[in-house]
Amino acid sequence: MKRLVYLDNSATTPLDKEVFEAMRPYFSDKFGNASTLYRLGLESRKAIEDAREKVARAINANPDEIYFTSGGTESNNLIIKSFDSVLTSSIEHPAVLNTCRLRKNWEIVNVDKKGYIDLEEFKRKLTSKTELVSIMHSNNEIGTIQQISKIHKICQEKNIPLHTDAVQSFGKIKLDCKDFEMLSLSAHKIYGPKGVGAVYIKNSEKNKIKALLIGGGQEQGMRSGTENVPGIVGLGKATEIALKNMNKENLRISKLRDQLKKKILNDIKNCWVNGGDERLPGNIHFRFKGLEGEALILMLDEYGICASTGSACSSKLLKSSHVLSAIGLKPEESHGSLRITVGKQNTKDDIDYVCKILPKVVERLRSISSEYRR
Amino acid sequence: MKRLVYLDNSATTPLDKEVFEAMRPYFSDKFGNASTLYRLGLESRKAIEDAREKVARAINANPDEIYFTSGGTESNNLIIKSFDSVLTSSIEHPAVLNTCRLRKNWEIVNVDKKGYIDLEEFKRKLTSKTELVSIMHSNNEIGTIQQISKIHKICQEKNIPLHTDAVQSFGKIKLDCKDFEMLSLSAHKIYGPKGVGAVYIKNSEKNKIKALLIGGGQEQGMRSGTENVPGIVGLGKATEIALKNMNKENLRISKLRDQLKKKILNDIKNCWVNGGDERLPGNIHFRFKGLEGEALILMLDEYGICASTGSACSSKLLKSSHVLSAIGLKPEESHGSLRITVGKQNTKDDIDYVCKILPKVVERLRSISSEYRR
Repeated sequence: MKRLVYLDNSATTPLDKEVFEAMRPYFSDKFGNASTLYRLGLESRKAIEDAREKVARAINANPDEIYFTSGGTESNNLIIKSFDSVLTSSIEHPAVLNTCRLRKNWEIVNVDKKGYIDLEEFKRKLTSKTELVSIMHSNNEIGTIQQISKIHKICQEKNIPLHTDAVQSFGKIKLDCKDFEMLSLSAHKIYGPKGVGAVYIKNSEKNKIKALLIGGGQEQGMRSGTENVPGIVGLGKATEIALKNMNKENLRISKLRDQLKKKILNDIKNCWVNGGDERLPGNIHFRFKGLEGEALILMLDEYGICASTGSACSSKLLKSSHVLSAIGLKPEESHGSLRITVGKQNTKDDIDYVCKILPKVVERLRSISSEYRR
Repeated sequence: MKRLVYLDNSATTPLDKEVFEAMRPYFSDKFGNASTLYRLGLESRKAIEDAREKVARAINANPDEIYFTSGGTESNNLIIKSFDSVLTSSIEHPAVLNTCRLRKNWEIVNVDKKGYIDLEEFKRKLTSKTELVSIMHSNNEIGTIQQISKIHKICQEKNIPLHTDAVQSFGKIKLDCKDFEMLSLSAHKIYGPKGVGAVYIKNSEKNKIKALLIGGGQEQGMRSGTENVPGIVGLGKATEIALKNMNKENLRISKLRDQLKKKILNDIKNCWVNGGDERLPGNIHFRFKGLEGEALILMLDEYGICASTGSACSSKLLKSSHVLSAIGLKPEESHGSLRITVGKQNTKDDIDYVCKILPKVVERLRSISSEYRR
């Protein structure tokens, strides 16, 4: 079989085998609807509540502050659509940004060249009219981790709730619910299943949130629909595993990432790194002069390397990333960008392989690029 | 192991082993994000489009008229929330009924004692102000199948689109998209996975629908969020299997159901059947005088029999079913109701077992019921 070096772990991750085994009985044996009265149903109910406890524990929340959803996008929509006036940042995921655009009032705070929120501008734009602040915990493209407790303190002074899209941070960065009032998370970014996520809503804020999916009243009436029991069990297990291994894995992954960074910056000319110094452990975001990101991705794919240009969600849209524009890159600069996100399945061998292949691919593409020769 | 006779197949169904095997590779091997450019991602994309074709074929639709969602509730919410003025029926699922309640204008058409829409009342209430009609294809509690093509003809005369919640009918009753403009369906009712469903939207009506989940623009911008690839593959496979076996299975299942009905009506006094003559093949809905449905369910559970009183979604709410009220039952009458839904895993043996146990259980409960002795 051809070698596969998957380095797009911020787009999605393979399901952990242990997570799969935890989910498995809930497909065909323990398949009861969790809203039924008989034991088969109560078993499903118990599995859901166990998962809820695991997710709550990860952020020091109460289990009744966790609501399961179909994923990060739904979590973000549920929160943001509950408010008329939202202050957000220029580098949010489209699930936040495009939902904010449809609010009655919405305002954007800019970021600096490394992707950090401008805190002075943030203070100025945070007015008594603001009903919600939504700032992502870390960025999916450039990996920058925001100073969330500083942002939260500013919000608290004006008594405005803070929502944070932590889809990329959850399970990777230690989070604590004292730093925000609401949080979105997703299972498939942490070796859990696709199609399931959760939202944390502090009990004191619960009455501000309007259910997005209306129906049978599941999830305390906050999210109707038959519970996805295997998915929820998978999210619980994935959370448990991520928490247990977090420190050790972060160290290992960031070391691999740093090796890659050093080698590539050394071996490839006209190459820069985007994003902040505080960044997601597995994330590195390069910019190569005179390249088309799409061509880069396709050629790396020929060598079995999976990586990304722009974010996964917008990579088919063929327009330059709003995140890269927001940190001040011109369209022609942002086109030559490459996101590599190292995950727990990656080894030193994988990184060595990329260090060998990437310079060759960049050289080959530059040799046919009229822009580079100019 | 204790005997388990699962007869609550309208609440949910066990995942078909063949469906599970179809889903399996997409968890850990073919796990790519379907929005990415490399081959691992394109493989996921192809799997999604194959599933879309299977679902489309089941109702003679075009694949681009099928949008995947997280389930029936989301499908219903997506459609209904797109309209300000909706005409619906008194026996809809809460995902329709409670969503309609939040519209600017909404009106209800009543049903007769068997659960059929009153077509004369329907014609009267359908005015030029109505933007959408939403009538369920078959009822989840009493099993009555509506005369959907008659209802559709009335809608067509006034040029008003018809949405049908076909969560209980899809995969069991032959459906054709010439009979409606929009349709909701769910995977876990047809031996597919929980947490995935779809909505059919006729291309000519597409511009009337407002996306409910906003973000990365997946599903033609109609439903953002990373695609649940294994779930979607599972829905496709479950649809394929259901379609292939529909006629044969319906015959077998309705025969089992009829045997049960005959035996119970014969062996238990003061017992009636609710619902229409045209009904879901596996559905039978009894009413026993002087009984509490909850006690009945719990006692049947002692014998390993899973069944339902009211619908699964509201069975924990301890109030009498809105469907049973709508067909004219008084609260004390509807409390003694029992829904049995036969599925493809059930055998003649299961039915014989229920025929033996149910009369005993009813007798025992009646012997301690002050109401029955009165």
